[in-house]
Amino acid sequence: MIDRLRRLREAAAAIGADAAIITHPANRHYFSGFPADDHTPDESSGILVVAEETAVLFTSPTNLRWAENAVSPPVIARPWSRPWPEFLGQELQSQGIHCAAFEDRALSVSDHAGILRAVGKIRLAAADNAFHALRAVKSEQELARIAEAARITDAAFEAATSNLEPGITEKALAWRIEAAIRDLGADRLGFPVIVAAGPHGARPHHDPSDRPIEEGEPVVIDMGAIIDGYSADLTRTICLGQPPPAFIDRYNTVLSAQRRALTEIRAAMSGREADAVAREALSAAGCGDQFLHGLGHGVGLNIHEFPSLGKDSDAILEPGHVITIEPGVYFEGWGGIRIEDLCVVTAMGLDVLSAAPK
Amino acid sequence: MIDRLRRLREAAAAIGADAAIITHPANRHYFSGFPADDHTPDESSGILVVAEETAVLFTSPTNLRWAENAVSPPVIARPWSRPWPEFLGQELQSQGIHCAAFEDRALSVSDHAGILRAVGKIRLAAADNAFHALRAVKSEQELARIAEAARITDAAFEAATSNLEPGITEKALAWRIEAAIRDLGADRLGFPVIVAAGPHGARPHHDPSDRPIEEGEPVVIDMGAIIDGYSADLTRTICLGQPPPAFIDRYNTVLSAQRRALTEIRAAMSGREADAVAREALSAAGCGDQFLHGLGHGVGLNIHEFPSLGKDSDAILEPGHVITIEPGVYFEGWGGIRIEDLCVVTAMGLDVLSAAPK
Repeated sequence: MIDRLRRLREAAAAIGADAAIITHPANRHYFSGFPADDHTPDESSGILVVAEETAVLFTSPTNLRWAENAVSPPVIARPWSRPWPEFLGQELQSQGIHCAAFEDRALSVSDHAGILRAVGKIRLAAADNAFHALRAVKSEQELARIAEAARITDAAFEAATSNLEPGITEKALAWRIEAAIRDLGADRLGFPVIVAAGPHGARPHHDPSDRPIEEGEPVVIDMGAIIDGYSADLTRTICLGQPPPAFIDRYNTVLSAQRRALTEIRAAMSGREADAVAREALSAAGCGDQFLHGLGHGVGLNIHEFPSLGKDSDAILEPGHVITIEPGVYFEGWGGIRIEDLCVVTAMGLDVLSAAPK
Repeated sequence: MIDRLRRLREAAAAIGADAAIITHPANRHYFSGFPADDHTPDESSGILVVAEETAVLFTSPTNLRWAENAVSPPVIARPWSRPWPEFLGQELQSQGIHCAAFEDRALSVSDHAGILRAVGKIRLAAADNAFHALRAVKSEQELARIAEAARITDAAFEAATSNLEPGITEKALAWRIEAAIRDLGADRLGFPVIVAAGPHGARPHHDPSDRPIEEGEPVVIDMGAIIDGYSADLTRTICLGQPPPAFIDRYNTVLSAQRRALTEIRAAMSGREADAVAREALSAAGCGDQFLHGLGHGVGLNIHEFPSLGKDSDAILEPGHVITIEPGVYFEGWGGIRIEDLCVVTAMGLDVLSAAPK
C-alpha cells in the first residue's frame, strides 16, 4: 500500500495538488484496501483522502468497523458525519490542504458542489483518468489473482457446458455456470453471465431469457469469476449438436482474426493499432461491418478499465497490462460469434491466461 | 410507461425544464424499461432523454439491440457516438430544448462539463431528488414483484438455515442462502448476502469470511432476492445450539423495539418520527448508543431508496411506500442483533411482507 500511495501522491503533485480525494470504488479499493462497492451513483461507501502525510478513509458509522478491519496500513478509517461533502470540505480545511485533486469522472455534480461550499479557499483540481491509470500495470500478486480467476472461469465453463442437451434455457445455463464458478471457490462474478442463443446472440450484451437453446444455433457465453476483487473475462461460442456450415464458416473467420490478434499484439502498440489487427482480418473476410465493438479492454478490479482497445483508443500497451482480445460478429436474426481470451501484455507479445477450449 | 413519463415531464416542468436527462440507473430503468446497470460511475449503459413529445434512450452500439428489445413504448432506443456528453449536447440542441433538467446526484462533474460544452444556450437545471421521488409510491404491479421477492427470500432463509451445524463458515452459509434464492426463481440478489457471526456481527455491514460459526454466538444474516428488478430485504439473527442468556436478553430487546415500530408507524409520519419509535424503545432498554444506523429505508429498484427512516430524515411516509424496519444493536467483541422486515406503508399502519420466523 505504501508504494501505491506514493504513486498516487506523485500523480496528484503532477497536477499541482497536495491531496487526492478518491471516490471511484475501484480506486478506493486499490489505494485503501476497503473492498466495498457503491450500490448507486448517489450512495457512497466511503471517501479516501490522501494528503502528504496521511491517508484516511471516511465512511458511515454503519460501515466503520468493516472499513477499520479492511484498510491496509498506513491507511486508517474514520467516521464521517452527513452530509459527507460538507464534512469533507471542513476536513480538508482543518488539514491545511492547498489544492485537492478529485475524480471528476467519479464525483457527482451535487457532491462536488457540497465540497466546494465547505472548502473555503482550497482549490479543487480535476484529475481526469490520472488515478485510474495507476492501476493499469499489475503487480505479481495482482497477476496471480487474475490468473486464478481465469483458471476458475475456464474450469466452470468446461464443467457447465459438458453434457449439455438442447432445450435448456439461457437462464438455466447461466445459473449452472454461475454455480460452477462459485463452487470452484470464486468470491462472486465480475458481471452477470451472458448466455445469448440464436437470434439473441446478435446482441453483444443480453440478459439471459427463458428461451430454450436449440440444436445447431450459435450460443454466445460470456462470464468471469472474481478472486479477491480481481476479475476474469472469458467468452466462448458453442453449438449444441452438429454445427451447420454457416456456423463453422463464421466461427473460423472470428477464430482466425482472434489468433492473428493474439500473435501480433504486443507492448508499445496503441489501442487503435491493436484493434486494427483483428478489424482488418474481419474486414478482409467481409465481416468488418458486423464487428460492432472494440477488440478489448483492460481488466482488473473493474471488468472494464484502462487500457481500451478500439478504433478511438490512444492508450499505449505496456508490459503488465491485462487485456481482453474479443473479436465478434453479429448477424440480426441469426446470432453472434464472439471469442474472448484474457491476456497479459509483455514486451514480446501476449501471455494468454484463458485455457478453455475454442 | 405513459403515466410514468407524464409524471416525469411534470416534475421537470416544475423546475422550469422542457426536457429531462436521466442518468441514474434505477431511474433509467423505471422511465424506459431498460434494466441495465452501470458497472462503474464512469461507464454509463445509456442516457434517457425525455422531452415534451419524445422519449429516447441513447446507448452504445454494443447495447443497442438489447435496449431496443427492452424499452417500453413510447420510449425508443438510438445509438450514441462517443464521447456521449458532447453527442447529447448536440442532440438537445437539434431538438430545440430550452432547459434540460439533469440528475446532479447521478451525473459526474466530467460528463456535466462535456454536455455544457456542446449544449450552446440551453440551460441545465439540477433536479436534486425530484425524479427519484417519483419511484417511491409503488403500483400494484410493483408491489406484486416486491412481495414475490420477499416470499422467495423468506423461503430461502428457512431452507438454508434448517439443519445448520456449528462449524459451517460464514462464506459457506452465505453461498447456501444465495443458491437457495436463485433455485427458488430469483433473477439475482439485491446485494451480497451478509453472514456476520460472533464478533463480526458488531459490524452492521460485513463481508462473509472463512471463520466457522460457533455454537451460542449471534449470527446476523441479511439477504434479499430480486424479481424483475425489484428487491426484497430481510435480516434475521440466529444462534446455533442453546442461546446464552445475553443473546436472549438482547434479542428480546430488539424484537420488542421492532414490534413497537411495526405497530405504531403509519402514513403521514416523518422518517425522523418513525425512527424515534424504535430508538426510544432501545434507549429505554439502555441500548440507544448501540443502535448505530437508521431504522430503515425505502426499497424498490434500488435496495436503498427514498424514503429514509433516520434521525435526520424529513421524508413523509405515504401509502404505497415500501420500507424496511430494522432496528439493530452492536457490541464490540460480542456481536450484533438485527431484525428486519419489509413493509408496505398504508394509511392504517404497515403491511408486513416478510414472513420468516423471528
